[in-house]
Amino acid sequence: TRNINLAVVAGDGIGIEVVEQGLKVLEAALASSDVKVDQTAFNLGAKRWHATGETLTDEDLAAIRTHDAILLGAIGDPTVPSGVLERGLLLKLRFSLDHYVNLRPGKLYPGVQSPLANPGEIDFVVVREGTEGPYVGNGGSIRTGTPHEVANEVSVNTAFGVERVVRDAFARAQARPRKHLTLVHKHNVLVHAGHLWRRTVEAVNAEFPEVTTDYLHVDAATIFLTTNPSRFDVIVTDNLFGDILTDQAAAITGGIGLAASANINPDRTAPSMFEPVHGSAPDIAGQGKADPTATVLSVAMLLAHLGYDAESAKVEAAVAADLAERAGRVRSTAEIGTDLAQRVAD
Amino acid sequence: TRNINLAVVAGDGIGIEVVEQGLKVLEAALASSDVKVDQTAFNLGAKRWHATGETLTDEDLAAIRTHDAILLGAIGDPTVPSGVLERGLLLKLRFSLDHYVNLRPGKLYPGVQSPLANPGEIDFVVVREGTEGPYVGNGGSIRTGTPHEVANEVSVNTAFGVERVVRDAFARAQARPRKHLTLVHKHNVLVHAGHLWRRTVEAVNAEFPEVTTDYLHVDAATIFLTTNPSRFDVIVTDNLFGDILTDQAAAITGGIGLAASANINPDRTAPSMFEPVHGSAPDIAGQGKADPTATVLSVAMLLAHLGYDAESAKVEAAVAADLAERAGRVRSTAEIGTDLAQRVAD
Ligand SMILES: CC(C)[C@H](C(=O)O)[C@@H](O)C(=O)O
Ligand SMILES: CC(C)[C@H](C(=O)O)[C@@H](O)C(=O)O
Repeated sequence: TRNINLAVVAGDGIGIEVVEQGLKVLEAALASSDVKVDQTAFNLGAKRWHATGETLTDEDLAAIRTHDAILLGAIGDPTVPSGVLERGLLLKLRFSLDHYVNLRPGKLYPGVQSPLANPGEIDFVVVREGTEGPYVGNGGSIRTGTPHEVANEVSVNTAFGVERVVRDAFARAQARPRKHLTLVHKHNVLVHAGHLWRRTVEAVNAEFPEVTTDYLHVDAATIFLTTNPSRFDVIVTDNLFGDILTDQAAAITGGIGLAASANINPDRTAPSMFEPVHGSAPDIAGQGKADPTATVLSVAMLLAHLGYDAESAKVEAAVAADLAERAGRVRSTAEIGTDLAQRVAD
Repeated sequence: TRNINLAVVAGDGIGIEVVEQGLKVLEAALASSDVKVDQTAFNLGAKRWHATGETLTDEDLAAIRTHDAILLGAIGDPTVPSGVLERGLLLKLRFSLDHYVNLRPGKLYPGVQSPLANPGEIDFVVVREGTEGPYVGNGGSIRTGTPHEVANEVSVNTAFGVERVVRDAFARAQARPRKHLTLVHKHNVLVHAGHLWRRTVEAVNAEFPEVTTDYLHVDAATIFLTTNPSRFDVIVTDNLFGDILTDQAAAITGGIGLAASANINPDRTAPSMFEPVHGSAPDIAGQGKADPTATVLSVAMLLAHLGYDAESAKVEAAVAADLAERAGRVRSTAEIGTDLAQRVAD
């Protein structure tokens, strides 16, 4: 009997509600196997910070490291100064656990209404770099709060960091029917970082001769996501551009209630982390209004990452079937979770 | 008799074609007045660079400075290494002439098809900072081309620079019926720059007590531009976020063929510059396929900036009338320009 040692970081706001449903579906997916889920709940987020001033201690991190994977709900609360939990907890997890592949599918499921008039088929995946770029926290300010303040933010990009994520993206493109990779950057302005990305894509392409590539400036990418999202297969991009494009991708495929993500450490030197793209949504927290589907789809990614491909496929199929019949129905967070678990069990 | 001393930088690709039409409409708008347009054409762009290796010399810049305004078509060509003309010419103009307000309306004109299923009324303006942020060119790389390369890009933000553009944005919001200003940034990650922007908006709000404000992270802004663009009135944001959001804004309002922009020096210490948001589009250059409307709307902004409000309104009205009757018609670049000039003259 193998077990899944799962670290659960429900976090703040609707994170608590959606994670509960994600776990329900995870249990259902594994019910007919001999695999058990051993959960460890971690008290991290706004409440912990208010009580102790801590965001993520060395002990927390060491304990999390002993797990096979992390399921995360959402982090953040308006009562905590902006940046404290994002930098001190969420990004600290991604960076410390070397989640250099932030995988975010952009898929329009049948039955889901897109805000686009003619969405066409949308089925791409964004490979967002997760450990470099403008997210490194390498900024600062002088004369802060005076008329002479200067506030800088440094985007740090390394050949090591860019190459490993680009190689991962090529491998994913290679495994997909269309075998196409689009690099998104802004190399006509951010010439140093941009040219590093461009040269790297050209070089790694030699290892994947079947994969075709093209390039878009990030501004142009937002246009194509609006006018022709079908053109995308795999997108590889930096941490900040990936943040922006994946929210837009969520919007055109039915909203962040459906958008899953995986923060992957492909070298498996630390647990990967699975989380919905949405935030803690304090305005609707505790009311059973949150859609747990994004978390459930993240659970499907978790199962696939741990090698449970059949179970992962079952979860995604359950979501697809539910979405196909969803129009007009209003269900609570728990009802949707129960329905999905039921479909998985059937 | 006053004259308009106009510096004309047609540039590359379709820039040449659309500027010709922009000038046609400008002449038409002033035909019944005693104002003459004195044009000076500047040979800048890919051809000049190929011939001389120059992008924008001190002499060019000094000559341009003596003008009242600049009309620019588009800069860039695939035969020139990425970044050379963008940094050495286009951005050099914006930075040298202190174009700190990059004004880009997002307006859906009646008759124009939006790719959004339910666009609603769209009528906002983006005030994009034009002289700071990740565009300052403050980056570099070491061990370039080796596995140990590190490529950095520095976003520089100053209280001076942020405050002046925020004040300009508040003044614009104050002058609009809805009087609403949305700050877009990413202060939960880019904490230093982001907090400078946030504090500045809070402080300057005291001078404009009638203006209501809100804040969106840039990723969330792309969602609302997809699901509810009507919520926006004035958006103020940094140089890079503004670049991204204004292309998305163009997409939802009918495409970059219609998107105008003004690079404004509000202190009038140097000429402001008016240019379509689109690029040089080498794939369709020279074929009469480019839509000159974005340039014509930029000419309307030019006229307004120079105090010719009635003429500016006439040009915008001509465009609006043309767009309202455009459906299904195919016209060449010159035909659209001629039709617009005709409407302005009527
Ligand atoms: C909360 C924030 C730090 C985070 C990010 O910017 O990565 C979020 O927007 C996301 O996309 O997961
Ligand atoms: C060509 C490029 C440097 C420019 C920019 O990034 O500002 C363009 O995209 C624009 O928006 O005017």
